[in-house]
Amino acid sequence: MERIGFIGLGIMGRPMAMNLLAAGASLTVHSLNTDAIDELVGAGATRGGSSQEVAASSDVVITMLPDTDDVEEVMLGAGGVIEGATDGSLAIDMSSIDPGPTRVIAEAFAAKGVAALDAPVSGGEKGAVEATLSIMVGGTPEAFGRARPVFDAMGASIVHVGPSGAGQVCKACNQLVVAATIEAVAEALLLAERSGVDPAKVRAALLGGFAGSKILEVHGQRMLDRAFDPGFRVRLHRKDARIVEAAAAETATPIPSFAVVTEQLQRALDAGDGDRDHSALFAELERESAAPSG
Amino acid sequence: MERIGFIGLGIMGRPMAMNLLAAGASLTVHSLNTDAIDELVGAGATRGGSSQEVAASSDVVITMLPDTDDVEEVMLGAGGVIEGATDGSLAIDMSSIDPGPTRVIAEAFAAKGVAALDAPVSGGEKGAVEATLSIMVGGTPEAFGRARPVFDAMGASIVHVGPSGAGQVCKACNQLVVAATIEAVAEALLLAERSGVDPAKVRAALLGGFAGSKILEVHGQRMLDRAFDPGFRVRLHRKDARIVEAAAAETATPIPSFAVVTEQLQRALDAGDGDRDHSALFAELERESAAPSG
Repeated sequence: MERIGFIGLGIMGRPMAMNLLAAGASLTVHSLNTDAIDELVGAGATRGGSSQEVAASSDVVITMLPDTDDVEEVMLGAGGVIEGATDGSLAIDMSSIDPGPTRVIAEAFAAKGVAALDAPVSGGEKGAVEATLSIMVGGTPEAFGRARPVFDAMGASIVHVGPSGAGQVCKACNQLVVAATIEAVAEALLLAERSGVDPAKVRAALLGGFAGSKILEVHGQRMLDRAFDPGFRVRLHRKDARIVEAAAAETATPIPSFAVVTEQLQRALDAGDGDRDHSALFAELERESAAPSG
Repeated sequence: MERIGFIGLGIMGRPMAMNLLAAGASLTVHSLNTDAIDELVGAGATRGGSSQEVAASSDVVITMLPDTDDVEEVMLGAGGVIEGATDGSLAIDMSSIDPGPTRVIAEAFAAKGVAALDAPVSGGEKGAVEATLSIMVGGTPEAFGRARPVFDAMGASIVHVGPSGAGQVCKACNQLVVAATIEAVAEALLLAERSGVDPAKVRAALLGGFAGSKILEVHGQRMLDRAFDPGFRVRLHRKDARIVEAAAAETATPIPSFAVVTEQLQRALDAGDGDRDHSALFAELERESAAPSG
């Protein structure tokens, strides 16, 4: 495997970098999380002093950061990846950020002879730890082919969706469908309960038909159990909803139902549920509803 | 099998009654659809002159009718089932109607010593023809057990959800989740397309993860193909949405996202898409959106 740099060792990045080490990668790491750096260095990685330094000593640089402005700063800012990356290297952003800025970053790299991929993931901390992430990739087929062994060390389902930005668009679509389906399941199961019908039986009856989904199965059960420990936090889904809304606004795509789901995510956040699992949209509905009359 | 009466031989009722005949039932039928009566009589059924007459010559009476007021009229009106049904018989309504009136009907029958079940179905015309319907049943366990062989002749997945009305509540939950998921998938696939990303690739990438659903698989493909021949008609889903909204209002259950989905169904109906498949919610979004800028 090529020499890899990894920037951003948070809840997701830390286990992803560990899986690269486990796959035999020569790894240089950089992060605000010094504990994570120590752990990775203890496991065989090299400490990088800055994003620029990581890029200078790597063939492939990966970023895994919280939001769009973090990625812009680390990739294109002073002392950033672009100042260290050499002609022929590859920059991969695995964060979930806006498609528009993603394309701008890719163009800036292209002007320096550096290939770029956007490769956001789904599957959460569990998928990161177990190397079973779904990875949605945007960029050229050549860059995708080159990165494939790197992705294989971190993910189970790896799809080349299209050109630069397509990975981020795909992730936005994923987050749209996931949140909207959670909200629909929450509304249905609460309707059942408020109607005096066992929501567990409704979930079971619906699972085998057209209403069946992974969300009904997993998050539906969470709602029945009031098991709202994360999982994927409301706070992060609210962030991703902003990305969906920006992408929709930029392309004049109507998203009337997701706009309401975004409001529900915001209400859940405002109510203090930011660090609960996104299935806590059910708890938000419960708060909004009158007590059962029965 | 007991002597069965079947009232309402429309798109659904006709093949359901045929399947009862095929299973060896002694069947008396009544309908506004005289062609369907002729067909059933040709296949061995007996012609019933009225709902009352059908009930008088049957142990189990099934109704499969368009809407709540139809069922109320046929069940409880002058010349209706209740005037023919004898002590110890069983009335099963397989229509999709409001849970509240369903409970009222069951109480009226109970006062005459007649058991009642609500047993709405999903699976559409295809499921009716192939006897693979999902049947969601409300009523006593005894009545459910008695009706089981009758349901087995028409369906593949048969669930006793709870007491009287629970079948209709379950069906309402099903229609809520199905329409909301279709709308979410439509918004996501249009967002992909408007962003210059192949929606077929997005569908494929999303299918294996938390965004995966039967709707993404089946109706997502319909959207890609613009294949909006029914299937399940927008007009009927709009009707079912009214039932969902009534049930939610009656129980003070908030359904913010489904309220928007209902508006989209109404817009599709107003635009002339009432007889297209409910996946035509995608076509409605396309109409509402600006032309792609790319």
